[in-house]
Amino acid sequence: MQTQAVAEQFTKFYYDTFDRNRTDLASLYRDPSMLTFEGVQTQGVNSIVEKLVSLPFQKVAHRISTVDAQPSNPNNQSIVVTVTGQLLIDDETNPQMFTQTFNLIADGGSFWVYNDIFRLNYA
Amino acid sequence: MQTQAVAEQFTKFYYDTFDRNRTDLASLYRDPSMLTFEGVQTQGVNSIVEKLVSLPFQKVAHRISTVDAQPSNPNNQSIVVTVTGQLLIDDETNPQMFTQTFNLIADGGSFWVYNDIFRLNYA
Repeated sequence: MQTQAVAEQFTKFYYDTFDRNRTDLASLYRDPSMLTFEGVQTQGVNSIVEKLVSLPFQKVAHRISTVDAQPSNPNNQSIVVTVTGQLLIDDETNPQMFTQTFNLIADGGSFWVYNDIFRLNYA
Repeated sequence: MQTQAVAEQFTKFYYDTFDRNRTDLASLYRDPSMLTFEGVQTQGVNSIVEKLVSLPFQKVAHRISTVDAQPSNPNNQSIVVTVTGQLLIDDETNPQMFTQTFNLIADGGSFWVYNDIFRLNYA
């Protein structure tokens, strides 16, 4: 599958899962996975899911604005993806802008998240 | 050198060079390098520098807000960096927010840019 198509399919699945049930994101991370969330670093599937589940909101909705992807090594075994979008938390009506970067590693027909960097964009 | 220190040093050098003389960025790219600039893809040092030099402004100043970095492979031979910041173009006084992701490859004591994804963030 083409890089951009993989990135878009992954991104849709990731945010659908995040917005429905964050614990289900565990299937996308492994022990070497790294997450830097608003500057705080976490490593490993358990720590990452614990961090994501602990975020202090009940409801969240991600709206994707852009998805850009490139192969991140010459063997087409990994893909770097940068997403920009908007985040609606709980009953707020003003979305917050965010940026998220993933580095995805191919394993058979699927991909897992090696790198994950999340930032809110403040004007 | 530590991942975060490399990322900050690279980022400072990149934007200082960009804002002073974009053609000097040629030293940071190679033929396999990829740039996706506002969704437009380019590959190779010559095409990338041509794209950057052709951007329609005379003066530009990047202000860095955040720099997040992680090793992007298990051998510490590459680093993924996501930068958020503000961009001041020509004589405008309202900065535009931007996001840029680099994947840097180690070569001896220095790093070159394998992946480069740039996006303006629109509210």
